[in-house]
Amino acid sequence: MQYIGAMDTHTASTKPAYAELARLQVRLHRLSHLGSIVGWDRNTMMPPKGNEARAAAEAELDALVHRLRTDPQQAEWIRAAQSEPLDDFERANLREIRRTWREANALPESLVEAKTIAGARCEHAWRTQRFANDWRGFLENVREVVKLSREEAQFLSDDSGLSRYDALIDRFEPGMRTADLDRIFGDLKQWLPDLIRRVQEKQRGETVIQPQGSFPIAKQKELSLALMKRLGFDFDAGRLDESAHPFSGGVPEDVRLTTRYREEDFTRSLMGTIHETGHARYEQNLTREWLGQPIARARSFGIHESQSLSFEMQLARCRGFTGVLAPLLTKAFGAQPAFEPDNLYRLFTRVKAGFIRVESDELTYPLHVILRYEIERRLIEGEIEPEDIPALWDEKMQSTLGVDTRGNYTNGCMQDVHWSEGLFGYFPSYTLGAMYAAQWFAAIRKAVPDLDGRIAAGDLSPAFEWLKANIWSQGSRWEIPEMVRRASGEDKLNTAHFRKHLEDRYLG
Amino acid sequence: MQYIGAMDTHTASTKPAYAELARLQVRLHRLSHLGSIVGWDRNTMMPPKGNEARAAAEAELDALVHRLRTDPQQAEWIRAAQSEPLDDFERANLREIRRTWREANALPESLVEAKTIAGARCEHAWRTQRFANDWRGFLENVREVVKLSREEAQFLSDDSGLSRYDALIDRFEPGMRTADLDRIFGDLKQWLPDLIRRVQEKQRGETVIQPQGSFPIAKQKELSLALMKRLGFDFDAGRLDESAHPFSGGVPEDVRLTTRYREEDFTRSLMGTIHETGHARYEQNLTREWLGQPIARARSFGIHESQSLSFEMQLARCRGFTGVLAPLLTKAFGAQPAFEPDNLYRLFTRVKAGFIRVESDELTYPLHVILRYEIERRLIEGEIEPEDIPALWDEKMQSTLGVDTRGNYTNGCMQDVHWSEGLFGYFPSYTLGAMYAAQWFAAIRKAVPDLDGRIAAGDLSPAFEWLKANIWSQGSRWEIPEMVRRASGEDKLNTAHFRKHLEDRYLG
Repeated sequence: MQYIGAMDTHTASTKPAYAELARLQVRLHRLSHLGSIVGWDRNTMMPPKGNEARAAAEAELDALVHRLRTDPQQAEWIRAAQSEPLDDFERANLREIRRTWREANALPESLVEAKTIAGARCEHAWRTQRFANDWRGFLENVREVVKLSREEAQFLSDDSGLSRYDALIDRFEPGMRTADLDRIFGDLKQWLPDLIRRVQEKQRGETVIQPQGSFPIAKQKELSLALMKRLGFDFDAGRLDESAHPFSGGVPEDVRLTTRYREEDFTRSLMGTIHETGHARYEQNLTREWLGQPIARARSFGIHESQSLSFEMQLARCRGFTGVLAPLLTKAFGAQPAFEPDNLYRLFTRVKAGFIRVESDELTYPLHVILRYEIERRLIEGEIEPEDIPALWDEKMQSTLGVDTRGNYTNGCMQDVHWSEGLFGYFPSYTLGAMYAAQWFAAIRKAVPDLDGRIAAGDLSPAFEWLKANIWSQGSRWEIPEMVRRASGEDKLNTAHFRKHLEDRYLG
Repeated sequence: MQYIGAMDTHTASTKPAYAELARLQVRLHRLSHLGSIVGWDRNTMMPPKGNEARAAAEAELDALVHRLRTDPQQAEWIRAAQSEPLDDFERANLREIRRTWREANALPESLVEAKTIAGARCEHAWRTQRFANDWRGFLENVREVVKLSREEAQFLSDDSGLSRYDALIDRFEPGMRTADLDRIFGDLKQWLPDLIRRVQEKQRGETVIQPQGSFPIAKQKELSLALMKRLGFDFDAGRLDESAHPFSGGVPEDVRLTTRYREEDFTRSLMGTIHETGHARYEQNLTREWLGQPIARARSFGIHESQSLSFEMQLARCRGFTGVLAPLLTKAFGAQPAFEPDNLYRLFTRVKAGFIRVESDELTYPLHVILRYEIERRLIEGEIEPEDIPALWDEKMQSTLGVDTRGNYTNGCMQDVHWSEGLFGYFPSYTLGAMYAAQWFAAIRKAVPDLDGRIAAGDLSPAFEWLKANIWSQGSRWEIPEMVRRASGEDKLNTAHFRKHLEDRYLG
């Protein structure tokens, strides 16, 4: 078996408390493997009547995992391990073990189980309610989810001393606070709307040829697989399937990506697959030596998103990459004027305000995120109720993007799966990821000045090697600021890189 | 949620020990749900590099389930529940709880885990070794599996007082003994070879037109789905996929069937799908009221097989059903002379000795089973070693079926998955199932004299209704002899029905 890292006899005898902790982590890793696979199955394979039993089975597992994560013996082990002769890696691992232990301990098992069941029920109903524009039906379920999410936030807040919403963010982005986000997003709100205006003005004069379809789904699948291979996805350790809401699941040893195909438009599944492949390569390249230990896990959700956006935004939408893409498209769908590289570039960098976050462009996307951040933060803090969401949504969409969503829940506040599952505090990660990705690529361009030439020549290896060395293989070895410093030479997120990236790409 | 049966407040207060037991059963039901789904995934979806981590995760779950099943508190609860005011259903459920508890308690956790890991490793390697005819490689892995299976049998034997092999059979077919099997299989060996000889002589004069292919796999899939629908499979509570070795998995609420398609021959996947649909309808129609309790589980593996063979042998290969099948085949593959009902009947009842158990006909199949029974029984009892298998296999195949398997492990002793996974004591269930199915259909014909006319007219409901009332809905309500008596009016398996069925069909 693998997972030997911390489990050998030497460790067990000289660091007994640490060894116990490490053994428990391996157990948790194995149990979460089961949860990941059945979760993937629920979204890709499961027939509708399986839902009730699946929700019960997943809740049982969650409660069990929660029980293990909160085993009171751990407090003793963690204390004892502090004075054991640990090496640097083990000490970092202990830091992460303590983090997850503390977080888990803040929540009673009954709440974990209740939230899993309510979330699964709400999410399952949402799948049909969304397209039926059934806000009333959704509201009934989501009230319970919000109620339980607030309780969850309160428990986390009591434990950490953070505000309720900060306590939720901290689970996805350790160390990030509302105050930081207000500053970061506040900065964006200063210059982004004006940049969007200038870009749209510039683009008004450009001609973009739209691809002429339809695009057979079988061909789209072939194209996705070819592209994933090109981007280094290991098909012996993962697969690509279909789901209503694309995601990256599974386990590092067996990564499960999903996408969604539409006959009339290949670009969404194409870009979606590239995006998920970024997530997947992070997982597939986490250090194997420590697998099963928290130190071998991805650093944070924002850092994870920085990988998917490194692939989707930094790589796939750069000018050079369209030369890689063009022959693949021609092979899949036959030649057409829209596949000419310059046109592809214009197509993939077109800016247009719209309803849907996941369909939006690189420039308007952050505004979708900020809107959700502002709503969910007030929802969790108890300043507003679920029934207040639509009006707030309509107002913010109108004022920031000039889009009218009144009465349109399908493409408005019911478009995302997150809130249905009780996933609050996650949305900021998307835009943090976009900004981190810009910072990584600034660093890569510094180290490899000819990066764009290499990409245009079809050589993606400099980017992959940098990401592997600086991000993927590092797992959770460092706290985020230290990781950022080692990777980019700057000790925190610097939004100037994102701004420069956008200005270069869209006005350059 | 479901699973209320034994969990209401009244039960909890008047029958506290029974309520505790029932609650634990529900937990086990939920955990085994996880195991079923990830097991299905391993066989249908998992990429190769996922295997090691999956084996570890499944072993973790198995060990956990084993720990719960052997929780010493249960002994106390079981004792106390005996004198609680249980109704008939609860008493039957308690009987089944005690049975599973006793069986589980006979095995140490370390053995359960070791056997799961060794079995998963051996089975995974077998997938390629089989087709490489690599007996040496397989032998190395299967030695460990046999060793652990013998230890398992010894523990079960110590607990039950049965012989080691009897102790294994008892898990699949409660109450069945080697002495019974020797009598039943001895009886078959008396008349079956001669019957085969007479049938082959009769068939020598018949002309069978072989279907002309190839048969596109997409069309075969459509055909399978159409047929399953016709046979009453609920697609909202299950699915059909592909695997190297077809099986019926999943959970009663979400049944996962698999099949394997070959371009050049549609008949195997067709009959395989019909077979698995029989298993599936049993699961899909187990009483929902008691779901999660042992009383709601299928009665035994032999009874389970009697359902798949009721579908495949009793229904699908009877003369009337060919009239149902013919138009479906013509729709899928176009008209051809082979699809004429009389020819289909001759095709599906053709008798020919061959290498492969799962490809063999209704008449020679039992001889394949008896051969395995005779080998595995001696293997478990320690009279022979794994390296002795090929010579015994060759000798028995030659003497009973006149087939030469020397040096041909692929189509000889490595053809089945069972031994690689440490599944010993299971093979007899296939032929017990065939004989039970004949007994059920004798009873159905008595109750519905016009059965064959109804089937020929496309009305399968009399058979389904009888099976639902007498088998599916009964779960494990009764011990097997009582169940057989209530269903068929005879208090045990009567091999005369099987003989009469074969003589009527093949010589009538």
